[in-house]
Amino acid sequence: MLSIILIGTGNVARHLFDAFASCEGVQILQVAGRNKKALEYFSASTEVTTEFTGLVDADIYIIALSDDAIISVTEQLIIKNKLIIHTSGTVALQQLLNDNRAGVFYPLQTFSKHRNINFKEVPICIEAENDTDVLLLKNLASELSNSVHEITSEKRKVLHLAAVFVNNFTNHMFTMANEICEEHGLSFTILEPLIVETVGKIGEMLPSEAQTGPARRNDKGTMEKHRQLLTTKNQKEIYSILSESILQTYEKKL
Amino acid sequence: MLSIILIGTGNVARHLFDAFASCEGVQILQVAGRNKKALEYFSASTEVTTEFTGLVDADIYIIALSDDAIISVTEQLIIKNKLIIHTSGTVALQQLLNDNRAGVFYPLQTFSKHRNINFKEVPICIEAENDTDVLLLKNLASELSNSVHEITSEKRKVLHLAAVFVNNFTNHMFTMANEICEEHGLSFTILEPLIVETVGKIGEMLPSEAQTGPARRNDKGTMEKHRQLLTTKNQKEIYSILSESILQTYEKKL
Repeated sequence: MLSIILIGTGNVARHLFDAFASCEGVQILQVAGRNKKALEYFSASTEVTTEFTGLVDADIYIIALSDDAIISVTEQLIIKNKLIIHTSGTVALQQLLNDNRAGVFYPLQTFSKHRNINFKEVPICIEAENDTDVLLLKNLASELSNSVHEITSEKRKVLHLAAVFVNNFTNHMFTMANEICEEHGLSFTILEPLIVETVGKIGEMLPSEAQTGPARRNDKGTMEKHRQLLTTKNQKEIYSILSESILQTYEKKL
Repeated sequence: MLSIILIGTGNVARHLFDAFASCEGVQILQVAGRNKKALEYFSASTEVTTEFTGLVDADIYIIALSDDAIISVTEQLIIKNKLIIHTSGTVALQQLLNDNRAGVFYPLQTFSKHRNINFKEVPICIEAENDTDVLLLKNLASELSNSVHEITSEKRKVLHLAAVFVNNFTNHMFTMANEICEEHGLSFTILEPLIVETVGKIGEMLPSEAQTGPARRNDKGTMEKHRQLLTTKNQKEIYSILSESILQTYEKKL
């Protein structure tokens, strides 16, 4: 049985808490956070504390906080020689080094408050200073997920960056399409089967093979008509720069 | 029983052919196309012809050709008073008017050669000059899909434009992420659960509510680190313009 303490009360902390709570091999001893109100979510089923200096003894201390807070909160902990891990995509292992053993436990997923996640399929990127801790983190991650990966800090940063493209920027494309639909009294929901198929293709072919559309065909007439339909400078700029990027991607390959 | 003739042998023609072939209420009388080789796909189960002037009598003539070819091929047909429809997102109904009745049958989906489509969920946008033909197209579309919509040419163009954002541009985000992964010896497949979840959220909340990431939080430090990791001018430009657009979207709402 692995005993853990969760430090943080935000989205990632909540999702991890719910996921670990149903793991047979994991015991959550405490949840720590500054925000009393936010601690209520956890207090029904575990001990909570607002004092970072009041943590009990555990195998692993998980800091699920924003990048900026990770270091400063770690420095407040008055524990020694313990495995302290964070859940960030961008903070390097080295930044966490102090009187304790540092580790990383980065779930490569997007978390929203009111949406359940099936952790079995979430890739967990782990990293630690020594082999014993790597093994410990592999055990912890395997309790949650079937997709556990030992990834260096450098490569984790790259994955985080790539994740911005496939999640943040993709979601912004949906937001822009929704905006365009709304401007013309159309419902965005009619685009959902297309969105589902866009992603469905990815399991079967490379994204570069799945590319279709006017930019891919260099259909200048349609692209010009599209630009005229767009109403804001921002929409037009993004349409042009992305179309140009698609065009160049396939010109290189021809 | 509706009798139809398919004009065109490309991706959309193939997908429509396969879909209509399994409809009880539709009989495909002929497939017409210039390309003899491409006609082989259809010739095992229906009559084919390379002569646009040699079409037999049918209820509906479906022109599944590129936007540029639609008008010129329609002008070559020596039929009169027939319902001739095209499958384009951008060609207006008015552009097809001649000695025949014009109609539109636009499946709002992305078609790849080797990927099957479940047409029951594909929105079909129809349009015709008169109510009788609208009804005829509704019947035809209902044979394929549970999602049939009467949409004007103007709104269809808007949907086509929105489709570029949710499909073409989204797929390009995947291509760029794949490029970033490859540059660092990482496998793109590790991002697939994140991609699936990005889309899964859309059924439950507005895309603007699903937005996360450094640009949404205005986390300048992370964005600067990301820009430094990117290797090409194109990647950096797209990263900056999309981050700025996300930032502005939420500043407006605050």
